[in-house]
Amino acid sequence: MQTIGRTVWAIPEGYIPSGGLDDDRRYVSHETACMLNVGETDAHVRITLYFSDREPVGPYRVTVPARRTRHVRFNDLEQPERVPRDTDYASLIESDVPIVVQHTRLDSRLAELSLLSTIAYGEAGGS
Amino acid sequence: MQTIGRTVWAIPEGYIPSGGLDDDRRYVSHETACMLNVGETDAHVRITLYFSDREPVGPYRVTVPARRTRHVRFNDLEQPERVPRDTDYASLIESDVPIVVQHTRLDSRLAELSLLSTIAYGEAGGS
Amino acid sequence: MQTIGRTVWAIPEGYIPSGGLDDDRRYVSHETACMLNVGETDAHVRITLYFSDREPVGPYRVTVPARRTRHVRFNDLEQPERVPRDTDYASLIESDVPIVVQHTRLDSRLAELSLLSTIAYGEAGGS
Amino acid sequence: MQTIGRTVWAIPEGYIPSGGLDDDRRYVSHETACMLNVGETDAHVRITLYFSDREPVGPYRVTVPARRTRHVRFNDLEQPERVPRDTDYASLIESDVPIVVQHTRLDSRLAELSLLSTIAYGEAGGS
Repeated sequence: MQTIGRTVWAIPEGYIPSGGLDDDRRYVSHETACMLNVGETDAHVRITLYFSDREPVGPYRVTVPARRTRHVRFNDLEQPERVPRDTDYASLIESDVPIVVQHTRLDSRLAELSLLSTIAYGEAGGS
Repeated sequence: MQTIGRTVWAIPEGYIPSGGLDDDRRYVSHETACMLNVGETDAHVRITLYFSDREPVGPYRVTVPARRTRHVRFNDLEQPERVPRDTDYASLIESDVPIVVQHTRLDSRLAELSLLSTIAYGEAGGS
Repeated sequence: MQTIGRTVWAIPEGYIPSGGLDDDRRYVSHETACMLNVGETDAHVRITLYFSDREPVGPYRVTVPARRTRHVRFNDLEQPERVPRDTDYASLIESDVPIVVQHTRLDSRLAELSLLSTIAYGEAGGS
Repeated sequence: MQTIGRTVWAIPEGYIPSGGLDDDRRYVSHETACMLNVGETDAHVRITLYFSDREPVGPYRVTVPARRTRHVRFNDLEQPERVPRDTDYASLIESDVPIVVQHTRLDSRLAELSLLSTIAYGEAGGS
């Protein structure tokens, strides 16, 4: 079977604005790490958040099942702590099997949508 | 002759919003995989869609002729089944010759345009 | 001196919308290939455009001087022919020395701005 | 400990629009280089700006401490000189230890937000 991906990914840009179209989950400002696991083995993923002025927080643990995609909203991460709003952060994503990671933000602060997206930076090295 | 590209590409972020400026094909919300084949041989491309909660669907089959580009809207894919709206998905794109793939979304849900784009994640390995 | 870059780049996504805020060069809808040459030698660049239904057009010739950046608007290319509006295209960019290429579009059709950008797909191989 | 990244990065697209929502730092048009240093050693970063019609300017010096992210707004760079507005530029980012760099622009000239972002182009070579 086809496999594709890397096991370590980085997203230097992170920022969840507060405010925006908060009454509709589709339009609320959010940051997403879209993960794809085309392999035959579940991916056990650890997300670590980095900040500008304090020690990293994590790991947040996520499973991406075999042959599935999972679009993880940073807004929804709760353990070990909620991701702060209006704060610069970055993320390191480590998986025990190869996955592919794409970063997307939807910003609705000024009542219209603005989007950004990029494939994250990936390397083959493990944790 | 110049060739460039990879044979396996992944786009983890996929989401076609329903609604938007539906009465004009230019402005309707859509997701596109832009494929470029600069080689002298037609590219036979297989697209497989991955979801969060069910088995992958595909392959969707597309041909990118030699020395041509093809901008495939996921909205238009019909066989083996229509791509669901308002649903997280991801895509794996496999070609028998090297191609280059770029992912773009136009979102017009709130009556103005929002765009995102990124070169997809590519690898040299074949299927 | 530091050098960085590749000699062959591809941008599969190309589309210049007609209309938009046409009376101000800053806001008119446009597509740009931003090229950076940090080396000590001028870069002689050849751009070839690919279409969905006809043979490629080119080369368009651009020079990026040593230690300079040049942000080339596809809208401005005239020789060998003007880039058609409202038409899917793609581009191949070949340089005789390493450069770095980033693709950006500004879309102002609906009277507000929408932006997309991505580093192009680069390879080391020459023409 | 995990390390990830490259030591040389390039962002060919640079442009800080004047105007926009200038009375709120969150919304003022800006360009950002988001840098992530997951290593155990502080990263000493040198940024050089390239222009279309004059010699490069720099280095601007920034430190990204160990296990920290730093989102540097080009708008805020002052030494050796302020970054000109409404002017095409590009940037080369060199670090003494591996980092990851993502480029983002927020454009608020027309009173709504537009965003672009991409992982920068990175190489392993040093200065």
